[in-house]
Amino acid sequence: MAQFQPRDPEYAARVHASFALQHAMELIGARLMVVEPGFTEIHLPLKPEITQQHGYIHGGVVGMIADSAAGYAANTLTAADASVLTVEYKLNLVAPADGQHLVARGEVIKPGRTLIITRAEVFAIRDERSTLCAIMQQTIMVMHGKKERTA
Amino acid sequence: MAQFQPRDPEYAARVHASFALQHAMELIGARLMVVEPGFTEIHLPLKPEITQQHGYIHGGVVGMIADSAAGYAANTLTAADASVLTVEYKLNLVAPADGQHLVARGEVIKPGRTLIITRAEVFAIRDERSTLCAIMQQTIMVMHGKKERTA
Amino acid sequence: MAQFQPRDPEYAARVHASFALQHAMELIGARLMVVEPGFTEIHLPLKPEITQQHGYIHGGVVGMIADSAAGYAANTLTAADASVLTVEYKLNLVAPADGQHLVARGEVIKPGRTLIITRAEVFAIRDERSTLCAIMQQTIMVMHGKKERTA
Amino acid sequence: MAQFQPRDPEYAARVHASFALQHAMELIGARLMVVEPGFTEIHLPLKPEITQQHGYIHGGVVGMIADSAAGYAANTLTAADASVLTVEYKLNLVAPADGQHLVARGEVIKPGRTLIITRAEVFAIRDERSTLCAIMQQTIMVMHGKKERTA
Repeated sequence: MAQFQPRDPEYAARVHASFALQHAMELIGARLMVVEPGFTEIHLPLKPEITQQHGYIHGGVVGMIADSAAGYAANTLTAADASVLTVEYKLNLVAPADGQHLVARGEVIKPGRTLIITRAEVFAIRDERSTLCAIMQQTIMVMHGKKERTA
Repeated sequence: MAQFQPRDPEYAARVHASFALQHAMELIGARLMVVEPGFTEIHLPLKPEITQQHGYIHGGVVGMIADSAAGYAANTLTAADASVLTVEYKLNLVAPADGQHLVARGEVIKPGRTLIITRAEVFAIRDERSTLCAIMQQTIMVMHGKKERTA
Repeated sequence: MAQFQPRDPEYAARVHASFALQHAMELIGARLMVVEPGFTEIHLPLKPEITQQHGYIHGGVVGMIADSAAGYAANTLTAADASVLTVEYKLNLVAPADGQHLVARGEVIKPGRTLIITRAEVFAIRDERSTLCAIMQQTIMVMHGKKERTA
Repeated sequence: MAQFQPRDPEYAARVHASFALQHAMELIGARLMVVEPGFTEIHLPLKPEITQQHGYIHGGVVGMIADSAAGYAANTLTAADASVLTVEYKLNLVAPADGQHLVARGEVIKPGRTLIITRAEVFAIRDERSTLCAIMQQTIMVMHGKKERTA
C-alpha cells in the first residue's frame, strides 16, 4: 500500500467526528475502527435487522460500509477545511456476506486535488476465518473550503 | 421502456414475499410499491436514522434501494423456482438525496438466461418536485432451481 | 431525452475539430455522425482489423466508441474554452457486436460545472435490424480554461 | 497476489493462440508478454495512430488492453474446452497515458465456475519511470463446452 502524508495533522479526529454524525452508520451498527493516512477500516457485527432473505448481511449494507470506508480513506488526505462526497462507485459482490461480522477496508489509490480514486474490500469473518465478499472501485470529489459539519 | 412477458404468472406475489423477508429494507423503512414485468418501484420516506452528516439521506441507503429496485425488476422475469443475486452494480450519485422521500425505479434492460442487465434511477421528492439523485447500472445472476426463501 | 442549451454556439464545429484530431478514432474507422446539444452519435463500419477471435467487433473497440460518444456529448455543453476528460466509465457488453456496422449514442444525463454524468448505448446493425450490444455509464470532468487542441 | 492452480496444463499456449486471433490487438500493436495462472501482462508501444487529441495514448485504447489483460487472466484458469467473455468492466483513468509504452497487468481476484472477477492496472512507462494511469474492475463469464476458436 502506498504511503501518504496527511495535510491535516488532526485528520483522525476530524474523520471520527464526521463518522459520528452519520446516523445511517449507527442504524446498521457500523463502527470506524482504524483511521490512518489514506486508509480506514469499518467493522459491522451481524444482527438480524441488517440481513436479507437468506440470513446473510444485505448486499446493500455491504455496499454502505465499503462506500464509507473508502470515502473516509479519501477524507484523511484532504485539508482541514475540505469535505468529500462520493461521485460514484462500482461494487462486485463476490461471496455471500456470511460472517459474525464484516470488515471493510478502504484505501486511496490515487489522490488528486479535485478527485480521489479509492478501492475497498469487504471481508466476512466467521470463527476467525476471513472470506473476501466484496470489492469496490470508487471516485471521490473534494469540496475545498466546505468544511464537514462536525456538530 | 421494453415490454416483457413474465414466465411466472405469480411473479408479483413471489417478489413481494421475498421483499418482506429483507429485514434490512424494513430497518431503513423502504416499501415496495410497484411490481410489474421487468420493473419495480421502491419508496423510502426520510427519517433521521437514515441520514448522513449533512442531513440528507445517506448515499449508501440510496444505493440500497437502487440495488433492490433493479434486482427485483430482474426477479419479476425469472421462473418460479429461480432466485436472483446481485453480481455487481455501479452507482453515480448525481445530486444530494434531499427529499421528504425517495423513489427508486428499477428496470430490466436485457434479460438473459444466466445474467440479467438492469438500470435504476433514484429521485428525491420535495414538495412535489422530483430531482434525479442517482443512476445505477447493474448485473444480476439467475440461480435456476434455487427458489427464494419465502417464509 | 432532456433538452440542453449549449453555452458555446459553435459547439458542433468545436467537437468535430476535436474528434478529427483523435488518430485512434481514424485507426478503427469511427465517424462522428450526429452532434447535438448533450448528444452525439458515432458510426463504425465492420472491418476485419477491428474484430476479436470470433469475428465480431472487439469489445474494447465497442468501449472506445461508447466512451467517445458520451464524452463528446458532454463536450457539446461546455464553454468554448473548456475541454473534457473521461474520469471513469462502466460498460456492460450485453450481446456480441455482430453487425455490418455499429452505432454508439452518447447522451448527457446530468450536467454540472465540474462533472458531467453521461450514458451511452451501442447498437449492432445487420440488414436493417438493430440489436443493443452495450450500455455504458460514465463520469466526465470539465477542465475550465483548458481549450481543446484543435490543430 | 493469490496463487492459482490452472485446470488446463496447456493454458499458456491456449491463451496465446486466442490472443493471436484478435485482429484488434494487432491493429493497435498490443503484445501479450506474460501469461501465468490468474495473471497476464500486455505491452503496448506508443505510435501516432493510437493517440488522442493531446498526443497521449487514447483512453479507449487503454481500456482495450486493460480489458484484454484481465480477461485473459481469467482465461488461464478455465478448462481447455471453455471460453470466456467480458460481461462488464469499470475503468478509472487516473492519469494521462503519457509513456513510450504502456503495460497492462490483469489478475484474477475471485475465480468461480460461471463468473470470474478480475482487476487490471495500466502503467505508462517513460524513461524507465512507471506511472499508474488506469485501474479496472471486471466481471468475466465462463462459457463451458465452448472452446475458443484457435485457427
